[in-house]
Amino acid sequence: MLKKGLLGQVIQHLCCLPGVGPKTAQRMAFQLLQRNRDNAKALAEILLKALAEIGHCQQCRTLTEQTLCEICADPARELALLCVVESPADVWTVEQATVFKGRYFVLHGHLSPLDGIGPDELGLDALEQILAKGEVKELILATNSTLEGNATAYFIGELAVKHKVQASRLASGVPMGGELEFIDRVTLLHAFKGRRNIE
Amino acid sequence: MLKKGLLGQVIQHLCCLPGVGPKTAQRMAFQLLQRNRDNAKALAEILLKALAEIGHCQQCRTLTEQTLCEICADPARELALLCVVESPADVWTVEQATVFKGRYFVLHGHLSPLDGIGPDELGLDALEQILAKGEVKELILATNSTLEGNATAYFIGELAVKHKVQASRLASGVPMGGELEFIDRVTLLHAFKGRRNIE
Ligand SMILES: [Zn+2]
Ligand SMILES: [Zn+2]
Repeated sequence: MLKKGLLGQVIQHLCCLPGVGPKTAQRMAFQLLQRNRDNAKALAEILLKALAEIGHCQQCRTLTEQTLCEICADPARELALLCVVESPADVWTVEQATVFKGRYFVLHGHLSPLDGIGPDELGLDALEQILAKGEVKELILATNSTLEGNATAYFIGELAVKHKVQASRLASGVPMGGELEFIDRVTLLHAFKGRRNIE
Repeated sequence: MLKKGLLGQVIQHLCCLPGVGPKTAQRMAFQLLQRNRDNAKALAEILLKALAEIGHCQQCRTLTEQTLCEICADPARELALLCVVESPADVWTVEQATVFKGRYFVLHGHLSPLDGIGPDELGLDALEQILAKGEVKELILATNSTLEGNATAYFIGELAVKHKVQASRLASGVPMGGELEFIDRVTLLHAFKGRRNIE
């Protein structure tokens, strides 16, 4: 069968993309090699270039091909607000969803002692250096609302206390438009505990 | 924003993949550039290699990096049965869903006069040369069950008549407007078994 050849290898590698199964990979491969050859070539080349040139921002650790990412390099972004997230994708998510005009710090993960991921791996020494400068007034802990994300937020919250910086955590609760019936018990429990008086 | 950089370009090119929207492309890009760098490099390299080396089988016109594809090069495949399909993906679909042991002829499209796609573009001269050899006893017209696919099957059926080769069309089971690539195996198997001679 054809699957053993180069085409098979293309499909196999496309299968490693998130959310791409064998059937989708096959459709992608045929499209890339037939209808869309120019884009396929451009995709492959830009991917190699990105792999070679994209590294971590020296200040916030997000992905960038420059020394400083565009957010860190932007003098209009407030130094007083620093938002800690687990991944560069989270930076984009916050940027797209909110009007946040502060800066970010990207952990590239969360504390996970069993996997050997401790404060060093998350760059917390660099974060402490930023906090020690005294410019940051509020540290927004926007790690995921998972067990690990919460533990990581708690740990970083202690660092904030140490440097006398106010730390805050994103509110957790029922998502906008979410129906109670379909919300998991833990979320609902938190939403109940965190209920606010209506003015 | 980061979107302007290399990362943005990677996402933009991933967006051209079938079924990949901006959000998915973003997730793919982050995974390729962070967690999955080795695979990303391998994917880009194999894609460039495939684009450079994969061409059309000299006999059946499917995609292959050899002169003859593995099916055409396989002496165990029957010469008497020739299955005409619209695309290389359809070859795979038939191979995976049926026990067909004949050979294929890939049109790379269907008759579409308005788009300038006539018999020449579909390689029907080459198909006629195969039919003229007299080895093919049955020509299975497995073009899509769309208006264009049906018209193309009818046109090729006439060529079969001219060369005194029995032509057949896949049986009911392929829904009207359905494209082979997206049909479940059982339906396709039944359609194959129930193929009818074209009068
Ligand atoms: Zn930065
Ligand atoms: Zn072939």
